[in-house]
Amino acid sequence: MERGAGVSGRLYGLGLGPGDPELLTVKAVRILASVPVVAYPALEGGDSFARSIAAAHLRPGVREIVMRVPMSPGPQATLAAYDKAAEAVAAELDAGSDVAVLCQGDPFFYGSFMYVHARLAGRYDVEVVPGVTSLTAVAAVSGRPLVARNETLAVLPATLSEAALAGRLADTDAAAIVKLGRHLPKVRAALARIGRADDAVYVERASLPQQRVATLAEAPDEAPYFSMVLVPGRGRR
Amino acid sequence: MERGAGVSGRLYGLGLGPGDPELLTVKAVRILASVPVVAYPALEGGDSFARSIAAAHLRPGVREIVMRVPMSPGPQATLAAYDKAAEAVAAELDAGSDVAVLCQGDPFFYGSFMYVHARLAGRYDVEVVPGVTSLTAVAAVSGRPLVARNETLAVLPATLSEAALAGRLADTDAAAIVKLGRHLPKVRAALARIGRADDAVYVERASLPQQRVATLAEAPDEAPYFSMVLVPGRGRR
Repeated sequence: MERGAGVSGRLYGLGLGPGDPELLTVKAVRILASVPVVAYPALEGGDSFARSIAAAHLRPGVREIVMRVPMSPGPQATLAAYDKAAEAVAAELDAGSDVAVLCQGDPFFYGSFMYVHARLAGRYDVEVVPGVTSLTAVAAVSGRPLVARNETLAVLPATLSEAALAGRLADTDAAAIVKLGRHLPKVRAALARIGRADDAVYVERASLPQQRVATLAEAPDEAPYFSMVLVPGRGRR
Repeated sequence: MERGAGVSGRLYGLGLGPGDPELLTVKAVRILASVPVVAYPALEGGDSFARSIAAAHLRPGVREIVMRVPMSPGPQATLAAYDKAAEAVAAELDAGSDVAVLCQGDPFFYGSFMYVHARLAGRYDVEVVPGVTSLTAVAAVSGRPLVARNETLAVLPATLSEAALAGRLADTDAAAIVKLGRHLPKVRAALARIGRADDAVYVERASLPQQRVATLAEAPDEAPYFSMVLVPGRGRR
């Protein structure tokens, strides 16, 4: 909506799910059809994955704020990019227009929306719309229940050391290992150390046409951005 | 769809999200409009929360299989109830009808769908449709980012001992404590022990009209079924 003069617009953090446009929620579709402004992150010189998920539902004539994120993210350059993006969003809100920030997955689950939220949440009306996370999209594709009954789950970035990974993996029933990048050999070693390498499933691009499911042994040493290793719980069924 | 003789139907595990019918995915809505049979759990003598989420999208004349789950679930009685339900679902699949098993949240994230899956996955074509979990619905309502960048997340059932809870909470950046029931005083004590009680947020019935957000001190000692305690990560923004 466009609001009258003097009334600020509402800021939406809009979860869009893991990639398949059919995994948008009905609420996200409704909000996309109503907002006059959307904002989304895109790598310098690249397309925006978030925008591509939402594309079919954008309002004709919608104004678009592209949040350009540096390719090799030095912390300072990234923060400066979000400072700039947040000011562009704030200008629209100040003018009374609602703005939806498009977020792949869920805005508060490893989402870049937190940068916008940290800069604007105190100043404007904010609504976060949850989305399907990569966590359960990957579990769905893997064909194996992730956690059941009283099982524990750990979500761990592969940037941890091998010893830290092995320690935490030994202390949980189920696990998801994210941010794989070049760390896949280390993840393999950590899982082998605690005897659970054979339980693990590797999934890349879950819910997209190119999705792939593989064993840990078959997984590439350098994993693409949209990939995850799951270790499902072993609870009796 | 109804399929021809000799061709079995497809079994869907259909994630419906945390309770707000607008948080259904577009895919879940499409499948609900196409299947001739739905199945859902309901407590003995009670209504089905899963059915209530999906109600507006059920096909007129849809056949319904109610999976009656015992109130005080002795393991044997629960397993027997799911044995019976799975056979009713299998009979429809054998007759060539697709069946959607309705699951609040996500089918593979603490969902009762695993009982049906364990009994039928080897015999039929199965598709799991992920849904918005209570985890991120609660985070959205809490107004605080759950995990960011390289933070770790632990999902822990409150049935763990106070010492086990405190140990695991001390070893993670962010946490979600589920299955609160009568364990809230223990959860408070565990968080106080590691000095993070003030970081925690209590949320009940996230996304429903009766939703409530409170501090840990304000939370009831006996929590309703749809409740969770979150300890958001503290990452710099």
